[in-house]
Amino acid sequence: MALKFDILHTSGKSRLGKLYTKHGVVDTPAFMPVGTCATVKAMMPESVAATGAQILLGNTYHLMLRPGADLVQKMGGLHKFMNWNKPILTDSGGFQVMSLSGLRKLTEEGVAFSSHVDGKKFFLSPEESINIQYKLDSNITMCMDECVKLPASHEVVKKSTEMSMRWARRSRDAFIDRDGYGIFGIQQGGDYQDLRQYSAEKLKAIGFDGYAIGGLAVGEGQEKMFEVLDYAPGMLPEDKPRYLMGVGRPDDIVGAVLRGVDMFDCVMPTRSGRTSQAFTARGTINIRNARHREDPRPLEAECDCPLCKNYSRAYIHHLQKCNEVLAVMLLTWHNIRYYQRLMQGIRHALAEDRLQEFVQDFYAKQALGDIEEI
Amino acid sequence: MALKFDILHTSGKSRLGKLYTKHGVVDTPAFMPVGTCATVKAMMPESVAATGAQILLGNTYHLMLRPGADLVQKMGGLHKFMNWNKPILTDSGGFQVMSLSGLRKLTEEGVAFSSHVDGKKFFLSPEESINIQYKLDSNITMCMDECVKLPASHEVVKKSTEMSMRWARRSRDAFIDRDGYGIFGIQQGGDYQDLRQYSAEKLKAIGFDGYAIGGLAVGEGQEKMFEVLDYAPGMLPEDKPRYLMGVGRPDDIVGAVLRGVDMFDCVMPTRSGRTSQAFTARGTINIRNARHREDPRPLEAECDCPLCKNYSRAYIHHLQKCNEVLAVMLLTWHNIRYYQRLMQGIRHALAEDRLQEFVQDFYAKQALGDIEEI
Repeated sequence: MALKFDILHTSGKSRLGKLYTKHGVVDTPAFMPVGTCATVKAMMPESVAATGAQILLGNTYHLMLRPGADLVQKMGGLHKFMNWNKPILTDSGGFQVMSLSGLRKLTEEGVAFSSHVDGKKFFLSPEESINIQYKLDSNITMCMDECVKLPASHEVVKKSTEMSMRWARRSRDAFIDRDGYGIFGIQQGGDYQDLRQYSAEKLKAIGFDGYAIGGLAVGEGQEKMFEVLDYAPGMLPEDKPRYLMGVGRPDDIVGAVLRGVDMFDCVMPTRSGRTSQAFTARGTINIRNARHREDPRPLEAECDCPLCKNYSRAYIHHLQKCNEVLAVMLLTWHNIRYYQRLMQGIRHALAEDRLQEFVQDFYAKQALGDIEEI
Repeated sequence: MALKFDILHTSGKSRLGKLYTKHGVVDTPAFMPVGTCATVKAMMPESVAATGAQILLGNTYHLMLRPGADLVQKMGGLHKFMNWNKPILTDSGGFQVMSLSGLRKLTEEGVAFSSHVDGKKFFLSPEESINIQYKLDSNITMCMDECVKLPASHEVVKKSTEMSMRWARRSRDAFIDRDGYGIFGIQQGGDYQDLRQYSAEKLKAIGFDGYAIGGLAVGEGQEKMFEVLDYAPGMLPEDKPRYLMGVGRPDDIVGAVLRGVDMFDCVMPTRSGRTSQAFTARGTINIRNARHREDPRPLEAECDCPLCKNYSRAYIHHLQKCNEVLAVMLLTWHNIRYYQRLMQGIRHALAEDRLQEFVQDFYAKQALGDIEEI
């Protein structure tokens, strides 16, 4: 087996696990901060590690454009290039080609597109995607698939899912097995249970080191997503990690863990750090709001990040008003730390068989809203 | 005496000293990074301290506009507000009122102006400037003065210097003496030796904890500046620190130390960090240059900052091309560290009586230029 995965404990559908890679262990349920262009925006990698993050996600689409996979390989791989010695998962690039690039043409063979940066032309096939992820030295390579926006008709989703499963086969064939490295298949099928089942069977027949649930968090809303998650994870092998791509908000993650998901990634904590949004146990706070202007209290008294330990709300508010980089640095750090504390809380609760209690407390605190204005 | 200053050693006109403040000791010759809006741009304060910086400069003009001196005072002073527990020097605000604000009117009483941020109207007098700096809890308060752009006629400089000396008297009278806090007078007089002498005599008659040399680095060029520095520092008291305001490039600092200056501040290292410029022993490097694209070597092999220890030139080049915040963070850190290493080198050389040798080596290395292209 290329990637070892141990399930230490279960509670209902939820699982406490450990995923072993060449670059270290990932405790699951895990949240992966996104390091799009070989950097988690506005963070030093040692600070990312200090938040408790054990694995990052890199974006193949961005890295193939700049600086290019060959250059990263020449520099000793993505870990060395960006000074992150822990595990890295890379996506296939397919999703972002479809959402970001210009002039794209999708065929059975792959997708031709031009770079959103300089218009340069590229062709991405399942084989090329796997090859790029190899050059990046990614610990977890993702299959290339097509992701349909919801809502979509059964016919459209079926046709797309069938092609994604052919691409999954081609991706698996192109992947070179090595100890501590693995490849994940991606279940598609939209919100159609029969297509999710079809996709799961196809993937299991091929055999992967882990299984992602794709095609969700694409505009369908949380209720619909949870409906799919009520059945989709259970179709995937019990003994392999399950990864819900691109999710999500804290309550999305809590709900998905309850439904048997082990891994998550999202730009939410980093992007919010750049738009004055802070995640807290008592909900989301916009630090630009005038109520914080003279508030000497920390953003979140219980948090141990540098922002909450060393600064007042008044100071962060001031930095934001002055568009100071330090505001982005501190808010990003706080938000990633919030997500990691959430995952640590979930894992501790799982280990101690009190996940239901943890979840109730999570929702109760979120409902409180921010502390009283001063 | 409100601020104690010990001269430990001299070599020619150069002095090795220690300045004692309420918030700690400053080894001189010293370089002060600039923390304009209660933050050294793109740096955590603990990182600024890690570079070896022992004192920061804060800008009264910016802070009086945002967040306002009363708010900073309410939050426990600037040290606590920005989480910097070492010494802070603040300028008077006068210089930046004249360079940044709109609709200003200068009279003997002070200067009326409108904020460049929102047009709000303010009046800054010597008394008000000192009061603001008191509220900020600045360790070193600067007199309010007028600074004339060079070249300027003897008559213009004389008139301005005379007013600045009246303002120096008013500033000193408004200052409240406390242990560990002090006020510096500012010598004006442009490039006229008689006016520099006049200004020095006036300031000495008033009596200050330190003396700044103002009105230089305002467009006169290094040669002209050094001409003035050949005589101006010697007019000021031997036993007090001498501070050359707004200077400068590394070779400006070396030349000024040789002429008897003890303290410096400049936005150069921080501003350059935002424009891809890196200072090194072998001169200035623009990391955006294509020659760095595939260069696996560190920016400066001898440097111990995170950028030089953990990353290739290729990586920093990549971050710059992608406009990543981390590029600014790392380059700023490197540049401040470069300045602090320069000052540490000067101090060590002074302590070991080999300043001339150090200076020769400094110029020889600067003349080499960057390492050969790979």
